[in-house]
Amino acid sequence: MYEELKPPSRLLMGPGPSNVHPRVLKAMATPLVGHLDPYFLEVLERTSDLLRMVFDTKNEFTIAISGTGSAGMEACLCSITEPGDEIIVGVKGTFGERMVDIVRRLGGKPIIVEQEPGKIIEPDQIKRALDESNAKAVAIVHAETSTGVLQPLDGIGDMVRKHGALFIVDTVTSLGGAPVNVDERKIDICYSGTQKCLNCPPGLSPLTISERAWTIIEERKTPITSWYLDVTMLKRYWGKERWYHHTAPVSMIYALYEALRIIEEEGLESRFEKHKVTGEAVRESMKALGLDLFAQEGYETPMLTSVKIPDGIDDRTFRKTLLTKHNLEIAGGLDVLKGKIWRIGHMGYGTQPAFVLPTLTAIEKTLRDLGRDIEPGTAASAALQVLEKL
Amino acid sequence: MYEELKPPSRLLMGPGPSNVHPRVLKAMATPLVGHLDPYFLEVLERTSDLLRMVFDTKNEFTIAISGTGSAGMEACLCSITEPGDEIIVGVKGTFGERMVDIVRRLGGKPIIVEQEPGKIIEPDQIKRALDESNAKAVAIVHAETSTGVLQPLDGIGDMVRKHGALFIVDTVTSLGGAPVNVDERKIDICYSGTQKCLNCPPGLSPLTISERAWTIIEERKTPITSWYLDVTMLKRYWGKERWYHHTAPVSMIYALYEALRIIEEEGLESRFEKHKVTGEAVRESMKALGLDLFAQEGYETPMLTSVKIPDGIDDRTFRKTLLTKHNLEIAGGLDVLKGKIWRIGHMGYGTQPAFVLPTLTAIEKTLRDLGRDIEPGTAASAALQVLEKL
Repeated sequence: MYEELKPPSRLLMGPGPSNVHPRVLKAMATPLVGHLDPYFLEVLERTSDLLRMVFDTKNEFTIAISGTGSAGMEACLCSITEPGDEIIVGVKGTFGERMVDIVRRLGGKPIIVEQEPGKIIEPDQIKRALDESNAKAVAIVHAETSTGVLQPLDGIGDMVRKHGALFIVDTVTSLGGAPVNVDERKIDICYSGTQKCLNCPPGLSPLTISERAWTIIEERKTPITSWYLDVTMLKRYWGKERWYHHTAPVSMIYALYEALRIIEEEGLESRFEKHKVTGEAVRESMKALGLDLFAQEGYETPMLTSVKIPDGIDDRTFRKTLLTKHNLEIAGGLDVLKGKIWRIGHMGYGTQPAFVLPTLTAIEKTLRDLGRDIEPGTAASAALQVLEKL
Repeated sequence: MYEELKPPSRLLMGPGPSNVHPRVLKAMATPLVGHLDPYFLEVLERTSDLLRMVFDTKNEFTIAISGTGSAGMEACLCSITEPGDEIIVGVKGTFGERMVDIVRRLGGKPIIVEQEPGKIIEPDQIKRALDESNAKAVAIVHAETSTGVLQPLDGIGDMVRKHGALFIVDTVTSLGGAPVNVDERKIDICYSGTQKCLNCPPGLSPLTISERAWTIIEERKTPITSWYLDVTMLKRYWGKERWYHHTAPVSMIYALYEALRIIEEEGLESRFEKHKVTGEAVRESMKALGLDLFAQEGYETPMLTSVKIPDGIDDRTFRKTLLTKHNLEIAGGLDVLKGKIWRIGHMGYGTQPAFVLPTLTAIEKTLRDLGRDIEPGTAASAALQVLEKL
């Protein structure tokens, strides 16, 4: 009745989890040591170092929250938000909306700066919100996973700082796939996830907090509502004191360490270039198939391509065929975009042609099987034209 | 600079993480599928079934929270506690104190029922607290990991129910090692951890909620403060709807599934017996070495033995010797018990003589090296006398 695990071998080309690198899978099987073992504390320290590299920051407090990206989102917002605090939130998709929900639960007042899904938030919108409020922080999603839009961040940090507010950025989907530049962009709090461009299983949320943000956190008048996500206590475990807070998820940290080692060996710049070119290749390929792209032109996420579902194609049938006939996972839309778009991920390890070409080919074949008149090889050819650049 | 993972091979005989079963390590390396993949949803369903078996409950909502045991504790308390709510908390060690901290952060009023560390809470104390308050819930720790005391639970559920309150029990350390009997004991909310008697890496918190508790949760006037730990939303993912909340930690679920499969194959009763006899063996062994036990007699946890550190022995030096010379981890005391007790775990897979005997022998040898006059073989002999029963 309880059979051994025998999962089908899937190409995970949705918004995550992405395919985990074989070296990371191997790391997951590494025998454990205790969470206060000198060996493990050394691994934690190296993991922090490597996270500083991908975040591009000097922040001492650079850790991984023991939960998925949403736990990281909540950890950031709950460390800053006190009842009555105004928090400006950029909403251009599901994950911005999630931030609003969290701020409300904390008793904060979200000031929503909105754009229709598929578009970026204009810096001017944030400027106006800052001028018209007494906001404690501005929170925005870098790569909005629900729409495939990459939010430009340059210049916002300065604006936010001029108003004495904190700059919080969600890089769940972008970290390791596009430049995040925490320090240069004056981001005060930045969190991410492991199951996207880091090619690590879901379960941890990398997080970095600037000294500037710590000053604000330490001046809180009310306790942080969450014990589990209380960064002031996590600081005592990840810092020199090594104080026991909760038992760290040892195996997940092993996996993250190995995933970051792979990125360090490859080099961030090379990795960014692969995502950029692959993103372009996938877009060209979709256009060659006659599909329309969804994200605002020029602001497409390099690790996730959103396309409009063509008329006459049933979303569920199409994706079910991909899954069962081609062992390929891509995702549909979330919330208002359900049934309207597909989301095709090409993240980290998943940018290699061995993952991308069969994905594009399976999409093409399935469209053809549903009666579309497409010459075999169209999708791959269009992509290969672009992939030549690499 | 960033070396491959090469952890020392430790015997993990502290309060957890315990040694992970090799089959579970192998499960961790299983390639991932998506968190909404039909295959994964099937694994989730089977995992819920198996969790019902170890919790001994028919509760439909029986899941794993995507965080460690403390996340489970917070998920329970934050789903019940609204501002101003009185929650009776049994405090007889660190984990009871943690509950109090969480209730306070949520704006609840903890009513503390206290005992000195090492003792059990008497049912009469709870009865009095119920009579004198308008408590919404009674929360208590079954196996208090900080002291090695097993709290009797029989009869409390009836008392709590008579007062219209909910019964919340922490079984982080006991689940899979001692009978938990959720339904029989009328426990309404019960959570646990994976890194103790389940021999799975830390990172998940099994949780079960009764229909009775759901009625109370659904009558809340204020939103649950935590988005990540909001059980009403988790119910929609783990239930038939399979609604996307957060990305489930796929690999950790694989590991938990395999760990539970091992328990199912072995049988719960056989497992409980192994813990019971091993606990007795370890206690006899400690006494034979001339050490005093810490937990109230007759209420020792069968999976964790607490002993007083003998006069003249330095805690840190002793444990460092065990770790570096014998690759053996046992734990010291927490908070007020720091430097006063040791905690020796014998959990699940770790109850086998191949783990227990070298542990006892290393403790004996280290005491001898520090000048104690002990005949070689004393610790193992005393244990083996008891282990004959198995």
